[in-house]
Amino acid sequence: MIILGLDPSLTCTGWGVIRSEGSRLSHIAHGQIATNTKAPLPERLLHLLDAVYAVIGQYEPDRAAVEEVFVNKNPQSTLKLAHARGAVLAACGRAALPVAEHSTRSVKKSVVGTGAAEKTQVQAMLKVLLPGVAIAGADAADALAVAIADAHLGGRM
Amino acid sequence: MIILGLDPSLTCTGWGVIRSEGSRLSHIAHGQIATNTKAPLPERLLHLLDAVYAVIGQYEPDRAAVEEVFVNKNPQSTLKLAHARGAVLAACGRAALPVAEHSTRSVKKSVVGTGAAEKTQVQAMLKVLLPGVAIAGADAADALAVAIADAHLGGRM
Repeated sequence: MIILGLDPSLTCTGWGVIRSEGSRLSHIAHGQIATNTKAPLPERLLHLLDAVYAVIGQYEPDRAAVEEVFVNKNPQSTLKLAHARGAVLAACGRAALPVAEHSTRSVKKSVVGTGAAEKTQVQAMLKVLLPGVAIAGADAADALAVAIADAHLGGRM
Repeated sequence: MIILGLDPSLTCTGWGVIRSEGSRLSHIAHGQIATNTKAPLPERLLHLLDAVYAVIGQYEPDRAAVEEVFVNKNPQSTLKLAHARGAVLAACGRAALPVAEHSTRSVKKSVVGTGAAEKTQVQAMLKVLLPGVAIAGADAADALAVAIADAHLGGRM
């Protein structure tokens, strides 16, 4: 089973592809998709959509996973995130890829063992779970974490 | 100048196409794009994207316009709206269509003459501005209103 984890964001969307065989996980690829902050919003959203669709085409995952989103203390940031998430999910729809949604707590619990883990603990556990992988950045790390959680949790939107 | 007004919503996205020649406005077409509430979110977003892209292909607008969005009293609704808006704007991006964003107040002010107008006043003015047009529903009416406002206001995201 090949799983694509996605961490949508307008500025920089993280993605990570892992293979899950029984209880064994292995890293396939990961990366980050940045958009031009000076470009109009429709163009940035299209770039995210096309780039995620290209990743799906290249790695042919069986399913995808994203973190649940909620409106946080900064509503403007949440709106931007939800726009990006809409474009990224439409790319999954275009590829007929089933997408599961996992809460931040359940991702942390899957990766670290506690839902209250800090981000740094998640990143430390990624190094243990995916040995030898030099992770490109925080967004890709989050994407890999949600992919790992999905290997444990499964489900579908 | 042909203007496409869009009123994105996950359940039902309204669209309206008008022609603006100097101070004269005329109706070209309008409609509503409903999505299957039982389908997975990625599929619904893709449907919105494809349907809006098809409308653009059919009517070849010079530009598009949407209302500004903000987080309102129901954060979950706002998130759904922003996801839909992301997919709809990506369709505009795909068509290289410039998109302007107008506040609800400025749309009401353009159509009715006051930013504090009620929705019913907007709909009544639409009948005056676009005589003989039987409007398909509230979402299409909102889309036509933002197109009319855009004819007055112009601009770009």
